[in-house]
Amino acid sequence: MTVDADTAGGDAAVDGDAAELTDTDASTETNPAASTESHSASVVGGTGFTGGELLRILSGHPSFDVVQATSRSADNMTVGRSHPNLRGLDLRFSDPADLESVDVLFAATPHGVSMERIDEFLAAADTVVDLSADFRLPDADAYDEWYDGHASPEYLDRAEYALPELNRENLPGADLIAAGGCNATATILGVKPLVDEGILAPDTGEVVVDVKVGSSEGGAGGGAASSHPERSGVVRPYAPTGHRHEAEIEAYLGLSVSFTVHAVDMVRGASATCHVFPDAPVSKGDLWGAYRGAYADEPFMRIVSGGGGVYRYPEPKAVAGSNHGEVGFELDPGNRRVVVFSAIDNMTKGSAGQAVHAANVALGLPETAGLEFDGLHPVGAP
Amino acid sequence: MTVDADTAGGDAAVDGDAAELTDTDASTETNPAASTESHSASVVGGTGFTGGELLRILSGHPSFDVVQATSRSADNMTVGRSHPNLRGLDLRFSDPADLESVDVLFAATPHGVSMERIDEFLAAADTVVDLSADFRLPDADAYDEWYDGHASPEYLDRAEYALPELNRENLPGADLIAAGGCNATATILGVKPLVDEGILAPDTGEVVVDVKVGSSEGGAGGGAASSHPERSGVVRPYAPTGHRHEAEIEAYLGLSVSFTVHAVDMVRGASATCHVFPDAPVSKGDLWGAYRGAYADEPFMRIVSGGGGVYRYPEPKAVAGSNHGEVGFELDPGNRRVVVFSAIDNMTKGSAGQAVHAANVALGLPETAGLEFDGLHPVGAP
Amino acid sequence: MTVDADTAGGDAAVDGDAAELTDTDASTETNPAASTESHSASVVGGTGFTGGELLRILSGHPSFDVVQATSRSADNMTVGRSHPNLRGLDLRFSDPADLESVDVLFAATPHGVSMERIDEFLAAADTVVDLSADFRLPDADAYDEWYDGHASPEYLDRAEYALPELNRENLPGADLIAAGGCNATATILGVKPLVDEGILAPDTGEVVVDVKVGSSEGGAGGGAASSHPERSGVVRPYAPTGHRHEAEIEAYLGLSVSFTVHAVDMVRGASATCHVFPDAPVSKGDLWGAYRGAYADEPFMRIVSGGGGVYRYPEPKAVAGSNHGEVGFELDPGNRRVVVFSAIDNMTKGSAGQAVHAANVALGLPETAGLEFDGLHPVGAP
Amino acid sequence: MTVDADTAGGDAAVDGDAAELTDTDASTETNPAASTESHSASVVGGTGFTGGELLRILSGHPSFDVVQATSRSADNMTVGRSHPNLRGLDLRFSDPADLESVDVLFAATPHGVSMERIDEFLAAADTVVDLSADFRLPDADAYDEWYDGHASPEYLDRAEYALPELNRENLPGADLIAAGGCNATATILGVKPLVDEGILAPDTGEVVVDVKVGSSEGGAGGGAASSHPERSGVVRPYAPTGHRHEAEIEAYLGLSVSFTVHAVDMVRGASATCHVFPDAPVSKGDLWGAYRGAYADEPFMRIVSGGGGVYRYPEPKAVAGSNHGEVGFELDPGNRRVVVFSAIDNMTKGSAGQAVHAANVALGLPETAGLEFDGLHPVGAP
Repeated sequence: MTVDADTAGGDAAVDGDAAELTDTDASTETNPAASTESHSASVVGGTGFTGGELLRILSGHPSFDVVQATSRSADNMTVGRSHPNLRGLDLRFSDPADLESVDVLFAATPHGVSMERIDEFLAAADTVVDLSADFRLPDADAYDEWYDGHASPEYLDRAEYALPELNRENLPGADLIAAGGCNATATILGVKPLVDEGILAPDTGEVVVDVKVGSSEGGAGGGAASSHPERSGVVRPYAPTGHRHEAEIEAYLGLSVSFTVHAVDMVRGASATCHVFPDAPVSKGDLWGAYRGAYADEPFMRIVSGGGGVYRYPEPKAVAGSNHGEVGFELDPGNRRVVVFSAIDNMTKGSAGQAVHAANVALGLPETAGLEFDGLHPVGAP
Repeated sequence: MTVDADTAGGDAAVDGDAAELTDTDASTETNPAASTESHSASVVGGTGFTGGELLRILSGHPSFDVVQATSRSADNMTVGRSHPNLRGLDLRFSDPADLESVDVLFAATPHGVSMERIDEFLAAADTVVDLSADFRLPDADAYDEWYDGHASPEYLDRAEYALPELNRENLPGADLIAAGGCNATATILGVKPLVDEGILAPDTGEVVVDVKVGSSEGGAGGGAASSHPERSGVVRPYAPTGHRHEAEIEAYLGLSVSFTVHAVDMVRGASATCHVFPDAPVSKGDLWGAYRGAYADEPFMRIVSGGGGVYRYPEPKAVAGSNHGEVGFELDPGNRRVVVFSAIDNMTKGSAGQAVHAANVALGLPETAGLEFDGLHPVGAP
Repeated sequence: MTVDADTAGGDAAVDGDAAELTDTDASTETNPAASTESHSASVVGGTGFTGGELLRILSGHPSFDVVQATSRSADNMTVGRSHPNLRGLDLRFSDPADLESVDVLFAATPHGVSMERIDEFLAAADTVVDLSADFRLPDADAYDEWYDGHASPEYLDRAEYALPELNRENLPGADLIAAGGCNATATILGVKPLVDEGILAPDTGEVVVDVKVGSSEGGAGGGAASSHPERSGVVRPYAPTGHRHEAEIEAYLGLSVSFTVHAVDMVRGASATCHVFPDAPVSKGDLWGAYRGAYADEPFMRIVSGGGGVYRYPEPKAVAGSNHGEVGFELDPGNRRVVVFSAIDNMTKGSAGQAVHAANVALGLPETAGLEFDGLHPVGAP
Repeated sequence: MTVDADTAGGDAAVDGDAAELTDTDASTETNPAASTESHSASVVGGTGFTGGELLRILSGHPSFDVVQATSRSADNMTVGRSHPNLRGLDLRFSDPADLESVDVLFAATPHGVSMERIDEFLAAADTVVDLSADFRLPDADAYDEWYDGHASPEYLDRAEYALPELNRENLPGADLIAAGGCNATATILGVKPLVDEGILAPDTGEVVVDVKVGSSEGGAGGGAASSHPERSGVVRPYAPTGHRHEAEIEAYLGLSVSFTVHAVDMVRGASATCHVFPDAPVSKGDLWGAYRGAYADEPFMRIVSGGGGVYRYPEPKAVAGSNHGEVGFELDPGNRRVVVFSAIDNMTKGSAGQAVHAANVALGLPETAGLEFDGLHPVGAP
């Protein structure tokens, strides 16, 4: 955890422009016996954006060996044709019908595919990490309410939610892991410390979450609304209410949130601004305590709250391309409000990076393996 | 008013993709005896962004003749050197110390200048329209609380708030008019119909306003945080709490709002998403009734709420360069929430356009005079 | 014409930061008997980008009355559904098979449609202005070489090229007018003065034209390459060689040019940088003389070449949304090179604005009628 | 080298969508005895953009240990305050007057500083790698002509140009290394194979180089022209003629080029389009031969020329954040022209990455050490 703060709460002292640096290699210490042997891996659905992100991360991962990437549309073409950053990768897409046996299969298919093919996936791999929504929710009722039901509800109990900051203890040895939704991930990371500390209770009152996301969230498909002339420069309410990630937040935080998602002009990134109204007065020290308590030992979490310079609060730009999550907060005593900011790269921490992080934990690898890239500065609209 | 809707509430019937077109020239009818004689005008502070926007609008206005634009930094240089769109304008900046006598003086100076020079301005012009914050708030106490006090509090009673949708009846004949803040304007336009209809009362509960704005709001000054490498692609919490526009919203709507402002990647535009929680259940029909009641006769307001196509809700892009405001809403019954979206061009409806609109009303001119430009499609990040 | 210059060549004297303002209403003077009666107009192909731009311009034009806009895909829907800036326009798309009789028909259909329907168009209207490539080239051979032949070659002689700066004398009374291609227009406007003055001859040597264009040039269709994630932030060689506009430049300037087009991150705009190598030495005074000679009486042309401030040379941003063209130049004596910069809005001066300008000339209307909008400052990536 | 091609020239056979993958770890093979011991390093001028990029690369480099980063303006502040991607780095800026002794000193100071402090730098370090222009040109006359002379001309002979693709053989053991200019690097990489193969001779005729660059090239300083409202969406001729990098290209390629640089809307990236006119006819096979001959063994170079998909030619987006360079070409037989495209990240291959690459060679480390990051897909305007 890194702290970049104007004021450190509690009894800790952090100086002016402020960084207390601890435990950036916590994960290594946490896994003293971490294996460095190589694991074979495949990516099902490799032409999509999250598939490409998986291939980028796994091809640079010291303990994974990518033996297969599948694509229906680009069968036999090089991976670099779809993902120009991977032009140097010696790999061609193969038919998704012919799955090779691997240690870990990562599924980056559209929602609905994994629930149909899960038996096949589990037959091909010891561990399946699914990036779709198909195994994120804990029970079939939720799929009936928010999606079009579930084709394989018997696996829902078996699936583990991937986010290590929430569910680390259940990941080792898991054979079916479901990466969280990007907007849900940003929100959960932002609000969870308040719930854990009891600052926010299920019946506390309104929790408004106003999310801003980049265009990669819409996937590689295209369409008029995502064409460059129409999509550039927007502040577009694309999910005014009823976004499916509400279900995920409720399931894992026990909180009902009022959720609204806007498309803004960036490609990567999700930023959740959470407006919460605690029942009891809360001080900055309380907040620092809660966030430090939650994230002090987390290798990918940073608390960024005030301080000097240009980047005083969490920003998607500051974590673009990396698996880091930034959270920060501000107190609005006049309105008894706490404003929490949470920023991630939707493709990385919000999807493929989270998946690899969870796989690292599941296999007993160092948590940060393959996820060391820290992002760029300056960077435009990444 | 224009309506673009998925479902028309109440007893009105609006067809599918939906536009009921009424009263776009309401203002002309409202002012049957509107004068078309020419008024002399000056712009004090002409090199800034709002000063340039005033010059753009006034130079195309059929009833204004710009006789002076002042600038300390660009004295004697052409207006087109600062504002390349106005390279064709035969006007040079002059010294702000030498004000010419005009019918209307528009002050586009930084906050704090007008309150010092107000006697001078009023001596030079029959009507003064101030675009700064100096005369927006109704009493000196508010300036003590939110700003650094006020140098000329005796004028606060005399000043009229410019926004015609809020204060039209007091503008005719006014000699000191204060244009609203852009974020406050977006919020007031969005929430006012709910207040007027009693859907929202001062003690209703939390009103969360999450605003996204473009870089022109920071002015022409520059600085590291607004440099292109640092400012591109951001979702940056720049006023997490305590934004001064809260004061303005409270003063004119009687509502305390929880206000947070983010910088996003566009140049022009302000979008306010207002999350409100009415005490009593409210239907879509109630909402349509409220917004139609408020804006049916307004020449610059559009209700955009659902419907088909790419632009289903208010978006800054859709009004960029124009004096239009778009408002829309969505119901979130599960959370007893109404989400209201409001989008304006911060430079136009949120500042210079509002100022000219108010001057039109004050002088008995057609309300839309000089403000007919409808914006562009497609347009990038305007 | 407006001049914004560091040094004025020849015997003219222009002061430091520089604007000699003349003849901005030249067109009005040129047409002393210009009619102000209303002409009925239709737009065939109204959902596309240039169709929308035509509707925007024509709906604000004092002498045109839009009686029909056609669309196959959006039949019976409001124009504002496709073009959100026109939500206030009381007009619905109708079936392109049922053309109303009008004074002027503007065809904004894809290449190949007009050549098939030209008899029908001419039967429906006294004047047809075509925005496609179908009637731009002067002979059928060129269509065989650069396109897929021509279905109605007998009309090629009859068609007049729309660009008034090149072909004004042949427009009055023309009944078939073909708007130029946007990249060709930018290039022709930039290089023509050098050809007219004999600085550049057909056998002078290499003329390299390196063009940068916005995404609106690709049309409203979408597709993977124009999706926001793939198209944002590009410098993409999309027509490395053999762009069809080469044919147009050769046809109207008599010059063979080496033409390359790049897609860059803006929506509107085309910028042509023309690198030319005159046989004989040329001075800045010669260049000023050539450009002034060409554009001194042109209502939409500006010479922007050096001078102070941020905008020292032509830039698409500076003319976005307007019908202005900016040209400028710089001398590179060490390489015997002249670099010419030319910037237009591809949607306006490069298409719909040029079309209306030509129609104004054809009908004897004031040239600038309906085209007075000067653009915005600041503006992002318009 | 990676090849992504539509047609492979000469006698080589490359399949349709095309990637022949060879030698991506050439550098490792080239340095069989490469040392993996740790070298101490310092960065002088650490708050600037290239200083931050050096810190990013060096902090992830397996063989460097950053012991000092200096800054006058941010003395004692954390590195993460200036560079938010490095918030996790436990390092504070120190006073540039107190240089620690290190193995390698990287100077990222403004032009003119290194030539004044070079004795001091060489006293503090065994190897100095300078990222400014101070030691790029081979003789003092060039500094008199293109810059304001040189304060330490006696070191010019000693300095080695950093670009390994041009000067690898002279780097091992060098103690003063000068990283090339970003625009010169892009151009040299693009044109050098044609010079080496004799396709282009010093007297061949015009070579026009039209460069497009991102805003990071202007540095962290800010100023009106680089403010977000003015800089967004531009195609701005910022060095129409006489750019200093011309001198560098002439010095190292022996070619006089006609050079023009445009600012476009991205943060990172430089794209050089080189229009060349060989004396003798040249075939695609000749070109493939030339480029393969030059780059077949280069670990960071890719040939991208045609092929399918969205990314058919070099693009800055495709290499953003990485040390890769992409080159490609197209033949324009009608104009006897070859168009060469070259794309790099100006911050990485065009500056800090090139510097580390050269240091790797100088010290006998694996060439790709610390430079393995491949970039992102999708990515916006990086």
